[in-house]
Amino acid sequence: MSKYFSSKYVSLTPYTPGEQPKEKKYIKLNTNENPYPPCEDVIKKVSEYASSLNLYSDPETTKLVKEICSLYNIDEDEVIFTNGSDEILNFAFMAFCGKEVSAAFPSITYGFYKVFAFLNQVSYQEIPLNKDFSINVNDYIGINKTIFIANPNAPTGLCLKKEDIERILSSNPNNVVIIDEAYIDFAKEESSISLIKKYPNLLVTQTFSKSRSLAGGRLGFGIGNKELIKDLKTIKYSTNPYNINTLTLIAGVATLQNEKYTKANIKKIIDERERVSFELERLGFEVLPSQANFIFAKSSLISGKELYLKLKEKGVLIRHFDQKEISDYNRITIGTKEDNIILLSTIKEILKEVTI
Amino acid sequence: MSKYFSSKYVSLTPYTPGEQPKEKKYIKLNTNENPYPPCEDVIKKVSEYASSLNLYSDPETTKLVKEICSLYNIDEDEVIFTNGSDEILNFAFMAFCGKEVSAAFPSITYGFYKVFAFLNQVSYQEIPLNKDFSINVNDYIGINKTIFIANPNAPTGLCLKKEDIERILSSNPNNVVIIDEAYIDFAKEESSISLIKKYPNLLVTQTFSKSRSLAGGRLGFGIGNKELIKDLKTIKYSTNPYNINTLTLIAGVATLQNEKYTKANIKKIIDERERVSFELERLGFEVLPSQANFIFAKSSLISGKELYLKLKEKGVLIRHFDQKEISDYNRITIGTKEDNIILLSTIKEILKEVTI
Repeated sequence: MSKYFSSKYVSLTPYTPGEQPKEKKYIKLNTNENPYPPCEDVIKKVSEYASSLNLYSDPETTKLVKEICSLYNIDEDEVIFTNGSDEILNFAFMAFCGKEVSAAFPSITYGFYKVFAFLNQVSYQEIPLNKDFSINVNDYIGINKTIFIANPNAPTGLCLKKEDIERILSSNPNNVVIIDEAYIDFAKEESSISLIKKYPNLLVTQTFSKSRSLAGGRLGFGIGNKELIKDLKTIKYSTNPYNINTLTLIAGVATLQNEKYTKANIKKIIDERERVSFELERLGFEVLPSQANFIFAKSSLISGKELYLKLKEKGVLIRHFDQKEISDYNRITIGTKEDNIILLSTIKEILKEVTI
Repeated sequence: MSKYFSSKYVSLTPYTPGEQPKEKKYIKLNTNENPYPPCEDVIKKVSEYASSLNLYSDPETTKLVKEICSLYNIDEDEVIFTNGSDEILNFAFMAFCGKEVSAAFPSITYGFYKVFAFLNQVSYQEIPLNKDFSINVNDYIGINKTIFIANPNAPTGLCLKKEDIERILSSNPNNVVIIDEAYIDFAKEESSISLIKKYPNLLVTQTFSKSRSLAGGRLGFGIGNKELIKDLKTIKYSTNPYNINTLTLIAGVATLQNEKYTKANIKKIIDERERVSFELERLGFEVLPSQANFIFAKSSLISGKELYLKLKEKGVLIRHFDQKEISDYNRITIGTKEDNIILLSTIKEILKEVTI
């Protein structure tokens, strides 16, 4: 730290992204990426637009807005695009929290919420989960705080029903409720986007990083009442008006124009999630019923940390969290069928080693 | 504005980017873009990497860091890449200003500094320019503020000499001095990058948007003492660790590997800048001696606003600022020779119309 660093950030602890190892090739099941490449059209369009990179990108992301409006049946002033969904989440902390309004989120959830709260000098309450890792909706009724809920939650994969979300929304009319739907496309439960006309305090955030195979493009968005979106645009235009680059913009457009491809990949991933869950349970694992593109599982035969380390040694990367309440578990991204076959056989091998 | 918007942003006025008109095709000389496309290698590499967009980008931007270090002869921990140079400038306001430390910058300069100051609740001093629009270095000696200087300055195009920068740096050892070199590659004066080992309080920022033909890719960077860079990385990893997308990263690498192409374009632009300046002077314009890829000029025959509007009507877009002290002037980006020929002939036409 330099002597010039602002005192307000002196104890700021950044978010730790999943490892992006460069030293060797892994079966990479640690950052919830989609194992399938973007559609052919993305590749074609990106190549076409590269020669226009000397010109600024469209700050209004007009083409993207048009596509998403027709997909979700929303109005043009009800959506904002951002540089990944981390940016929309940070904007929401900036816009809707402050000295007067603190934040609240589950104690086990996306680790970045806490960092954003600290970054924006917002006090926050971490609300414990139930013993089965589900969210206790009653804890969020009328709490007068800006609420952040990942739905499905990470790293548990568990999902709230629409009526539960509505209870939280209607009991907190003076606060914004942010439903972070990074993984919703893999869920049985419905997106909350259909609720934005009914609840002016609802902001739904999503990302192109998971179901839409564009993690490397950095594209996220927020959907909500036009007054909320206007506030978020004030923040965007005061921070980085050209936050979406030309190639990501056109990749996003091409992706939305090929929903069939996205849907087919989602189906493959869900099918594999069910198969891997079943196989792990046969190996004695306890597997949470996931509605995301990852599973959260523990074995009584080996600690979470040890399994993570042994898998890494054998070339399979999964995610382990040191946080005490979940340190027995690991979060495993669902890869291709081929990836998952190797994952499962490697786990079998490790279990044999530790039980001999 | 919604009733949920944080009180601290209620009077936040966003930056106004230059027009990006979609209704008709203009000769676009209003946002200081490079008129030449990125090099062939950029287009090739972008096409190659598009199929890997399902994977996250490298948060450490390792390949880019390697290239820039060899180009500028700096160490790996002396540079940070950002989503355009607006992001590094905002990070600098966040990291090096605060309640205890206010900011200072010229009263006529890049309009975003003021917005960043407001966004970060930082008080600031706007220091008037000399009558000839040059920066009075004495005004910045030992002022105990975090100083932001665009060098060359915008929209004037005027540039400080290295020894002037050194006077400011050495007289403000307890404050960071940010030299925003968005346009330095078009200047006779030298970059301040060579000073970072001597002054631990120097942060130099640059962008790939101007000389490097990647405005649409959104790529900027900061170079400075490793302690400063560490602070800025703490901000980055607490805001948006994956701020650089995969395609921009590889486009940046390919650009840096083709410095000859960049240099050749810079030369063409400088040559045209001198020619256009000369021609405008022949038409009676007063033209500031620009060291950037734009010129700042006024005519006694027509007001700045009127010339801007008439050129727009005739299909040529330049930038006019309403700010009182400079409202007689217009900022004109240097385009290709063909663009500039049309610009000059259209101006002649307009001058004829108004003087008949």
